[in-house]
Amino acid sequence: MPVNPWSDTIVALSTPPGVGALAVVRLSGPEAVGITQALFSKKNLAAQPGHTLHYGTLRDPSNDALLDEVVVALYRAPRSYTREDVVEISGHGSDFVVQQLLGALLRQGARLAEAGEFTKRAFLNGALDLAQAEAVADLIAADSALSHQVALNQLRGGFSDELRGLRAQLVKFAALLELELDFGEEDVEFADRTGLARLLAEVQGVVLGLLRSFELGNVIKNGITTVIAGRPNAGKSTLLNALLREERAIVSAIPGTTRDFIEDEVSLDGLRFRFVDTAGLRDNPADEVEAIGVQRTRQRIGQAALLLYLFDLTELTPAEVQADIAELTSSLPTLPVLAVGNKMDLSTAAQLAAFEELSEISIKLNFIAASQRLGLDALQESLLAQVRGAGLAGTGTATIVTNVRHARALETAAEYLAAVRQGLDVGRGTELLAADLRHALNSLGEITGEISSDDLLTSIFTQFCIGK
Amino acid sequence: MPVNPWSDTIVALSTPPGVGALAVVRLSGPEAVGITQALFSKKNLAAQPGHTLHYGTLRDPSNDALLDEVVVALYRAPRSYTREDVVEISGHGSDFVVQQLLGALLRQGARLAEAGEFTKRAFLNGALDLAQAEAVADLIAADSALSHQVALNQLRGGFSDELRGLRAQLVKFAALLELELDFGEEDVEFADRTGLARLLAEVQGVVLGLLRSFELGNVIKNGITTVIAGRPNAGKSTLLNALLREERAIVSAIPGTTRDFIEDEVSLDGLRFRFVDTAGLRDNPADEVEAIGVQRTRQRIGQAALLLYLFDLTELTPAEVQADIAELTSSLPTLPVLAVGNKMDLSTAAQLAAFEELSEISIKLNFIAASQRLGLDALQESLLAQVRGAGLAGTGTATIVTNVRHARALETAAEYLAAVRQGLDVGRGTELLAADLRHALNSLGEITGEISSDDLLTSIFTQFCIGK
Repeated sequence: MPVNPWSDTIVALSTPPGVGALAVVRLSGPEAVGITQALFSKKNLAAQPGHTLHYGTLRDPSNDALLDEVVVALYRAPRSYTREDVVEISGHGSDFVVQQLLGALLRQGARLAEAGEFTKRAFLNGALDLAQAEAVADLIAADSALSHQVALNQLRGGFSDELRGLRAQLVKFAALLELELDFGEEDVEFADRTGLARLLAEVQGVVLGLLRSFELGNVIKNGITTVIAGRPNAGKSTLLNALLREERAIVSAIPGTTRDFIEDEVSLDGLRFRFVDTAGLRDNPADEVEAIGVQRTRQRIGQAALLLYLFDLTELTPAEVQADIAELTSSLPTLPVLAVGNKMDLSTAAQLAAFEELSEISIKLNFIAASQRLGLDALQESLLAQVRGAGLAGTGTATIVTNVRHARALETAAEYLAAVRQGLDVGRGTELLAADLRHALNSLGEITGEISSDDLLTSIFTQFCIGK
Repeated sequence: MPVNPWSDTIVALSTPPGVGALAVVRLSGPEAVGITQALFSKKNLAAQPGHTLHYGTLRDPSNDALLDEVVVALYRAPRSYTREDVVEISGHGSDFVVQQLLGALLRQGARLAEAGEFTKRAFLNGALDLAQAEAVADLIAADSALSHQVALNQLRGGFSDELRGLRAQLVKFAALLELELDFGEEDVEFADRTGLARLLAEVQGVVLGLLRSFELGNVIKNGITTVIAGRPNAGKSTLLNALLREERAIVSAIPGTTRDFIEDEVSLDGLRFRFVDTAGLRDNPADEVEAIGVQRTRQRIGQAALLLYLFDLTELTPAEVQADIAELTSSLPTLPVLAVGNKMDLSTAAQLAAFEELSEISIKLNFIAASQRLGLDALQESLLAQVRGAGLAGTGTATIVTNVRHARALETAAEYLAAVRQGLDVGRGTELLAADLRHALNSLGEITGEISSDDLLTSIFTQFCIGK
């Protein structure tokens, strides 16, 4: 794509508004240096190399008013964020000063940048693909270690490179199929069907893997809803408090939607867990009021990513625990469950040993003493292991999809890839194969932006902040 | 003063907190480059020249986690804001990313900067004098064109240079006086009394000029309270609305402390005017309720910097106008007054001519038609002229004192300078002269920071924001 397809130069405040030590006003475009020069008389910026800093004062040439003492950072195209000439003016962090400075730059011919316009130019100039550009916004919005890591990995290429490589190979086959259509009368086969089938299988494997990662990706971006359920006095609130204090990383305390449910967020090893405390499950669910409580708890469990079933080691038998879990998850066979036995400090060795049998029937088990803060580290490890096990095993954060748009495009691609594979199997005609393959290629191309529309770009970049 | 009197390196977020395109984290101190280097593996920063920019990624060496893609700006001592090595790391504007980055830098040995500590180091390393350092905070807080200009002029030297030069000359005389004391027995005179008297007069002139400017300086920083008074239906609200609309620069609409008073702020030619509308003055002040209204209006006038007396040209006689003004300002002989005749569009030429006589008794007069927006430009000119005339005439913004601390120090200096001059006149002994002169020198030195205490510095710099 050509560098500098625009004739105008954009400007915006790139740091958050408000009072601070520094404010940075950024310009990008062919006149970025010239417009700055009109305010900066100390040296000839055009003669300075890129990636240099220049201290001086800015004056508004329209009235010769002194604007600010600043440092001007120069970036020369194409070695800049946007691949255009970029100037970053670092001045005093006052809204008044910034307004004066922006006004003077606008009078010299700059235009106020739209939201995300710097990043949009970076994308259109080929500095970033679309998935990377979206990662910039994710990175700015990141509020936990893992969402930060995922965004940063995506910004640095992430799955884009792999996807682009596979797509490029598919494009070759698609071209050969189209060629066959041109020679339609002659019944030739340019595209090697065996090679195509092999490649399709490979691409589909990657796409499905990415789609599977989306569940975890979503969890990373939005937190893991973990319902804590159990009988009254199992120690649910004590456990929650212990987890919160343990990590000293309370993100927020969200009042529950009903007074029965209390939600709290804790960041464990960079993953945000949203713990939902529930009304205790009673021994006697026949009672009408109690039944409503159980029903509500079940509702919450239905929305959970993880169930933490807490019980009192000194009160329940392994069979009762098994029965409770079975009842809670009766309609949710795939929900990951962690059984946690509380009050281990008050239990006998025989009681603990009796519960080991639960592990034999594949119930994950932890022993803790919430009030004594015992066993919490191991519990946190188990929580993390459950989440990692549920999503994907053994893959790095580089291949996690967190973006709904990407997931939708991958789903569409997967459908068309399956259709092409099936078409190959049943010997469907070239025309149908080519059409399905084109759809799959379009969906894959939308992720990285090789295929994009103005509408798509607008909807993506208007979610950015001004100045990025 | 020596460069790098500290062994530690400070770090802080220098841009406002919150979500934005960019966040800048700043380090200053001997290890600024080394600490950054521990996170930045792309190139050897120590080998790079100052005033250069370096793109790369930062990793936390304690866990190898990727922190951000950044641009590192390098400044080499003494060519930096603090005169120490300074690094400015420009990353993505997310509080989470910033917290991670700050955490990693702290683990490498940086210390979180206190409020204003960068500027304090700049002062202690001689990059700025104290009055300039204070101007940095004023500049950040500036919210009108003039307060911005005054702060910027002060930052660039302002009256500091003149004051420092005169003080240096006084110091020489003081040293000679002290020398006389050492030779106390011998009754010698090293200090030329005539030269000293001449210099004292000059310094006192400058000090008193600066003190006079403080009234305007205060007004520039805090706005000019202008009471609009007049009889009912003189057109006060119409005038206020006209002024507000004229400038399209309404700063705020502050609800009055009582329902009788409405305040509005307008920025005229960079000066903030706070207009206070008052209840109309009645013809019959004998009425009790009316009397309270007049009393309140008088109270407001007592707090005003300027009185705008508005009257209806078609209703009042020049004698009535003169009487109203005399009554309103009876206890305030020095309050600047501007008489404004409204409804000039409905007046006859004879009516207008009759009022010209007011000018002859030194009442400043303007004619307007508020509802027709006639005469407003001239009125604004008159308002500005009144303010400039009240404070100081013919001086630039470079010599305006806006800082209360400076004004107090100037007052003290003026007192001691007067004492020395008087002492010279009456032939007071050298010891007393020397003591008074020392006091005067201390007060002058406190302004620029040649004389400073830890307490003073602490009280000044803690008013700064972190990161400056």
